[in-house]
Amino acid sequence: MELLKERILRDGVFRPNGILKVDSFLNHQMDIDLINEIGREFARRFAGTKVTKILTIEASGIGIACIAAQYFHVPVVFAKKVKSKNLDGDVYTANVHSYTKGTDYIIRVAQRFIDKKDHVLLIDDFLANGRALLGLIEITRQAGAKVAGAGICIEKGFQEGGKIIRNMGVNLQSLAIVNVDDEGNLEFLK
Amino acid sequence: MELLKERILRDGVFRPNGILKVDSFLNHQMDIDLINEIGREFARRFAGTKVTKILTIEASGIGIACIAAQYFHVPVVFAKKVKSKNLDGDVYTANVHSYTKGTDYIIRVAQRFIDKKDHVLLIDDFLANGRALLGLIEITRQAGAKVAGAGICIEKGFQEGGKIIRNMGVNLQSLAIVNVDDEGNLEFLK
Repeated sequence: MELLKERILRDGVFRPNGILKVDSFLNHQMDIDLINEIGREFARRFAGTKVTKILTIEASGIGIACIAAQYFHVPVVFAKKVKSKNLDGDVYTANVHSYTKGTDYIIRVAQRFIDKKDHVLLIDDFLANGRALLGLIEITRQAGAKVAGAGICIEKGFQEGGKIIRNMGVNLQSLAIVNVDDEGNLEFLK
Repeated sequence: MELLKERILRDGVFRPNGILKVDSFLNHQMDIDLINEIGREFARRFAGTKVTKILTIEASGIGIACIAAQYFHVPVVFAKKVKSKNLDGDVYTANVHSYTKGTDYIIRVAQRFIDKKDHVLLIDDFLANGRALLGLIEITRQAGAKVAGAGICIEKGFQEGGKIIRNMGVNLQSLAIVNVDDEGNLEFLK
């Protein structure tokens, strides 16, 4: 997606060791016009794919998923990372390791919001090691639902997530696949 | 907002001691068509008010803020609750007590995303004791920016947040103000 790539080049911050910061337009401050175009692009890429629900994970994925859902006309469910008093009843859970935060956490989705009839499109802002996305796939499968595909804004092509997810047979659509080398130079692999 | 009130009556779960769960359409599973109407209603209520940025707090506020921002044509910034490696540089911080989770937490916004020229509209799903909203107001003031107003989906009228915020002179617009009594009966105060 050229618009996203241009924006990454213009406003992204790249640093050695694969660090790419896009917090001025994607995951802290959010450029809603850009995210609208991202939603439209996901709709184009998954046209013809049956989608009954979009599943994402808090926090950065939620805004992107909600804007995208306007094109799919389906509800959004977001997996929660923190056990709260508000999340009672039967839940699906998956364990996720965060390399960014250096910790494991459990994600949770109330069972009544995904069932075996659902065709679930997974949406998130980043794909790096793929642990969050694997957690969402695990929850979808626990529900007996079908993974309709996965839409990612930015995939780090130098990390293993994309390969793992594609090898599972999931239709993974990443709008930009980037490499950041040890000197902090960025190139697009796709 | 009648559409929201009807939905609360139809799909909300009320329990004694003021508990109101709306996780089937607002803050776990999200009905995007409803949230689009909520965004439109915020735009109507703040028509004529200068807004340059929408500020919300992760996680439940983000989707609502992003959908609403489509009507205001401004960026969304969401305050983060967790200190992460991705949030470096100068940040505004505020301490927030969560009655729901029984803990204090710190919210953070990178300083470069709000400045003194901004007119900041605060958006969140719930207003109860008002601690999260007070944190967002504190951050806006630290930035030297103006609080343009606050848009809340559901205000718990039996808790103190609404009174505190209105007494500060903030233009607080709550789309539904509810009371849930000790027997779990719900009524709309507005």
